[in-house]
Amino acid sequence: MHAETFDPVLASQTIDTIRLLSADAVEQANSGHPGTPMEGAPLAYLLYSRHMRHNPANPDWPGRDRFILSCGHASMLLYSTLHLSGYDVSLDDLKNFRQFDSKTPGHPEFGHTQGVETTTGPLGQGIAVGTGMAMGARYLADTLDKDLFNYTIYAICSDGDVMEGVSAEAASLAGHLKLGNLVYLYLDNKITIEGDTSLAFSEEVATRYLSYGWHVERVTGENLAEVDAAIERAKRDPRPSMIITRTNIGQGAPNKQGTSSAHGAPLGKEELALTKQALGFDPEQSFVVPEAVYTHMAAIKDRGAQLEADWNTRCEEKCATNQALADWCADKPLTAEQIDALLPTFEAGGSAATRSTSGQVLNALAAGLPMMLGGSADLAPSNNTHLKGEEAFTPERAGRNIHFGIREHAMGSILNGLCHTRGLLPFGATFMIFSDYMRPPMRMAALMGLSPVYVLTHDSIGVGEDGPTHQPVEQLCGLRSVPNLTVMRPCDANETAQAWKAALINRQGPTALILTRQNLPTLDRQHYAAAEATQKGAYVLAAEQGELQLILMASGSEVQHALAARDTLQNEGIGVRVVSMPSWELFEQQDAAYKEEVLPSSCRTRLAVEAASTFGWERYIGLDGAVVGMTGFGASAPGNKLMEHFGFTADNVVAKAKELLG
Amino acid sequence: MHAETFDPVLASQTIDTIRLLSADAVEQANSGHPGTPMEGAPLAYLLYSRHMRHNPANPDWPGRDRFILSCGHASMLLYSTLHLSGYDVSLDDLKNFRQFDSKTPGHPEFGHTQGVETTTGPLGQGIAVGTGMAMGARYLADTLDKDLFNYTIYAICSDGDVMEGVSAEAASLAGHLKLGNLVYLYLDNKITIEGDTSLAFSEEVATRYLSYGWHVERVTGENLAEVDAAIERAKRDPRPSMIITRTNIGQGAPNKQGTSSAHGAPLGKEELALTKQALGFDPEQSFVVPEAVYTHMAAIKDRGAQLEADWNTRCEEKCATNQALADWCADKPLTAEQIDALLPTFEAGGSAATRSTSGQVLNALAAGLPMMLGGSADLAPSNNTHLKGEEAFTPERAGRNIHFGIREHAMGSILNGLCHTRGLLPFGATFMIFSDYMRPPMRMAALMGLSPVYVLTHDSIGVGEDGPTHQPVEQLCGLRSVPNLTVMRPCDANETAQAWKAALINRQGPTALILTRQNLPTLDRQHYAAAEATQKGAYVLAAEQGELQLILMASGSEVQHALAARDTLQNEGIGVRVVSMPSWELFEQQDAAYKEEVLPSSCRTRLAVEAASTFGWERYIGLDGAVVGMTGFGASAPGNKLMEHFGFTADNVVAKAKELLG
Repeated sequence: MHAETFDPVLASQTIDTIRLLSADAVEQANSGHPGTPMEGAPLAYLLYSRHMRHNPANPDWPGRDRFILSCGHASMLLYSTLHLSGYDVSLDDLKNFRQFDSKTPGHPEFGHTQGVETTTGPLGQGIAVGTGMAMGARYLADTLDKDLFNYTIYAICSDGDVMEGVSAEAASLAGHLKLGNLVYLYLDNKITIEGDTSLAFSEEVATRYLSYGWHVERVTGENLAEVDAAIERAKRDPRPSMIITRTNIGQGAPNKQGTSSAHGAPLGKEELALTKQALGFDPEQSFVVPEAVYTHMAAIKDRGAQLEADWNTRCEEKCATNQALADWCADKPLTAEQIDALLPTFEAGGSAATRSTSGQVLNALAAGLPMMLGGSADLAPSNNTHLKGEEAFTPERAGRNIHFGIREHAMGSILNGLCHTRGLLPFGATFMIFSDYMRPPMRMAALMGLSPVYVLTHDSIGVGEDGPTHQPVEQLCGLRSVPNLTVMRPCDANETAQAWKAALINRQGPTALILTRQNLPTLDRQHYAAAEATQKGAYVLAAEQGELQLILMASGSEVQHALAARDTLQNEGIGVRVVSMPSWELFEQQDAAYKEEVLPSSCRTRLAVEAASTFGWERYIGLDGAVVGMTGFGASAPGNKLMEHFGFTADNVVAKAKELLG
Repeated sequence: MHAETFDPVLASQTIDTIRLLSADAVEQANSGHPGTPMEGAPLAYLLYSRHMRHNPANPDWPGRDRFILSCGHASMLLYSTLHLSGYDVSLDDLKNFRQFDSKTPGHPEFGHTQGVETTTGPLGQGIAVGTGMAMGARYLADTLDKDLFNYTIYAICSDGDVMEGVSAEAASLAGHLKLGNLVYLYLDNKITIEGDTSLAFSEEVATRYLSYGWHVERVTGENLAEVDAAIERAKRDPRPSMIITRTNIGQGAPNKQGTSSAHGAPLGKEELALTKQALGFDPEQSFVVPEAVYTHMAAIKDRGAQLEADWNTRCEEKCATNQALADWCADKPLTAEQIDALLPTFEAGGSAATRSTSGQVLNALAAGLPMMLGGSADLAPSNNTHLKGEEAFTPERAGRNIHFGIREHAMGSILNGLCHTRGLLPFGATFMIFSDYMRPPMRMAALMGLSPVYVLTHDSIGVGEDGPTHQPVEQLCGLRSVPNLTVMRPCDANETAQAWKAALINRQGPTALILTRQNLPTLDRQHYAAAEATQKGAYVLAAEQGELQLILMASGSEVQHALAARDTLQNEGIGVRVVSMPSWELFEQQDAAYKEEVLPSSCRTRLAVEAASTFGWERYIGLDGAVVGMTGFGASAPGNKLMEHFGFTADNVVAKAKELLG
């Protein structure tokens, strides 16, 4: 397609139509960002009409090129382009921009609008998610078929995207991995909200990306032939490409272009009319698409249908001799039975850190699930996430062990990009404390309903000598508070296996596995309830003998103390139940009867034990219970010493229980 | 001092002593990181003995050069060097490395060990905090005295520090601002925990820093003269400097040097003995400091005392004619009276967004507090943080309006660096949702007891059209869960003024101001309780008439609905109290009697109303109350439409109250 020459009149008319549809929609909503769609229109036009292989009739075609609008606030650029390209975004949808339940929300939302490949808005994320998508493509190409999965990830990004640290981390890794299937266009408009970029941003972006090992081009956004040729070169370059496009925010608006006033507010009636006039459109009319533009853009659909049909034919042929490809095409959801068949169980009496058990479980699962891949932000030996016998993900070959580098934030976003790649089961690991570095992409995963598994080890003051900078305190409740993120903090080896199972079964949102550095005893499940109940989030691990007088609740490393405290108290004739609570989220999903069975409302003498912030436990203990937990930061000393100091011992649990019992 | 020539024997003996003290301490603790102290010893030696102006007898001397160990895991490098330089870190302290309550915790802790300028450990932070310190120095120099505050910020950093996005953001800004008072040494050892850096890190760090506008040098760590000369050039260069020092992790350990096994575990008895042998020390002895080394290093103390004495003399002289300097030297704490004198009050009946009121309050305060400075991560017009009539912080002059760029994470860390600068009152602003991007430095501020003010606007689904990517839901409880961080969510203009007062009075930890995008009515304080009670965190805004039957609790934009609901319910004869809860943290600090007065335990019919995650509210409503709050993400639509949709209306509060009342 790139061989075709331009029809300069049609091209320009289409680009101006994108500009005006965008400005009209922002005006109608009286909210939004007109300036960036107006400057980015030529790029979107070129990508959608000349470069991208895509089929508007089937936005899910696996062989398609992907497009990310990293500067999500320019959402109207995407919506206008999707509309003109024949996607399921109507003119009425454009008119409903930013209205309740419309297909055209303020920022592009994955799963909500066809043709939106990922949710964007928080700046920098798109660049990093694209890196993950490119890695996903490389993984499919190297493990299934090089020809079928040679697709390209395109993105349009803005100043904010390249200023944010997450994009710097991702770009460094993308350069290292020589992700030639990345083609990014950067709108170098010299304007941010506070004014000229010279207020805060004078670095040489081109040099920086060269330092990462990228292919870098500089072009003028309004010179279509120049941009077109640069994209063409970028597609062929074996390195990731950054095309720095000198643009003018609000291009076409005679008085506002090139100023920050074009950024985040409607142009205003008068300026919009002047813009239409300047672009040769009727200043009295809104949401106008010249018929010639529709006709011109209709070719995209025809070409896309043909591209997909050809791809499907090749794919079917290959499936006959490529079982892995055939399996991938079948796209069957993972079943609990499949996981159970792979899941190891652990005999009572042993002792192991849950991070170490997790490593065993992960390896057992990965052996049977070839689409599992992942790694750590340079802590694999500590996180126990290395897949034994598997290759690394290198510039030469997409192995299953990913070395993310010391880049937690990019890791989180890259996992989202990998999750956008059908069939992949990605995981990423770091010390739990550093989940703070990747909260933005964890939230995005939850919002998009993506299902990466976060392996977060070193989960409490049990970390010991590394001290308060490395000891999570508020991170556990911080993660529990994220909607649609499932948090699992297993108490022993068998709960750890079950936690992995829960993570793989849940394909509606991310799961965080919270694991210890220190050893924990493997409970005797003959004596206590079976670990399968982990799937219910909370369960009666040890029932009371006699009348129920106290409920002890605990998770992870503190369950052992709850059990020991129960022994002491039962010996004194006090009826104590121990509830293991590996996952609040799974527990909340159970029906009222089950919840009442586990935590009977008749018993309000409740004591929770958890080596983390007490914040949030009141949900289960109410105003009458108590928590043995953390109320401040940890300290540097051997872990067992700290556990004792902060009261995480059976003796202290007994003492607190007696206080409660009065 | 730099004019002196080296005594190569003494220098080498001192460096090896640092190496072995560090390795011995890690061995004794059976925990820690020997490799980086061993490679970094020559750099620390050169800085402390030849380049830094510092007085070990007074680590707080304001004219001193600062040193940051950005790779905090190499803490023994710092402790060994502090010991030899004559700081209050004894040989016994070194022997107690990583033990409970010792002066030598696993990572350097500010406020805990003399000579530790900032807490480090989470990688990347040191580079960014140093940027803030350098900006602080520039501010003191430009506003008080250029000669007295011409100090330099030195740092030693590692691969992880330069890989993390926060350092990329900070370095870009440091280059932009031409912070020539930054001299960083990067330990380019080609080794990370997972192995060789070539696994994940092949970018050209030198080129990258050049792209930021830095002065870059490349030297060999073991070549003292070369490093020394590079530091000398760096000190004089008007740009920030990055000295890339080729080093060998575990330098001196014959079998482990240059491998990741030297990173995070003791060398082991045998290897340690071999190391001592190789360095000409007695392999049988530990914690040995040759007398010649002590004598050699004693010169530091003498020189430091002289430097400070000279500085003090000059300072005193200048104070006679420089009142601003004299005020700064007096270092008097801010009083409530001072703040009250500046604080505006707002008349009832108006309506304003709390972000907008905050802007007025901030400007009124800043007019009287010349050491207040700050800005936004490119959202000043939306965050209302511009200080009117004040200059920008530019490469030429340190004005009070800082343009952080779209770099929230670096902003958080830079605020910490500014807080490390005596007398400054820094603030930083962004949309509340993007507080997720700066959680790591917010936690560090809380841990160190620093007091930046975070201005977080657009605090709920009230954001409206921008949609779920921009609407905080779990951020409010996420911030409340951080120990020692005070969160204030004022309900009207006068509570907003009081919230600023609380933020400035509290010098023990950071404060987050949570502010609306949308307008809120200014309450009639004749009719309701006075806003000064904001300082107690929660107060009875409207008392019940008749018997207390229901407590309505709310914060911020939802207080108005609680009040309206109370009117309706009281009209039906139901005794309803409205408690405004701008700050849980301040409320928790009140005595039991006050808490009981506000939330009498006799009344368990309690309903909380807050346009944020319900997570955590159970602390106040218990098992019998309810919350009108968010349980999932928001949506894109006009804000008032969303408020209605999600139930934040007086009618819905009345309905829920009636359900509760049964």
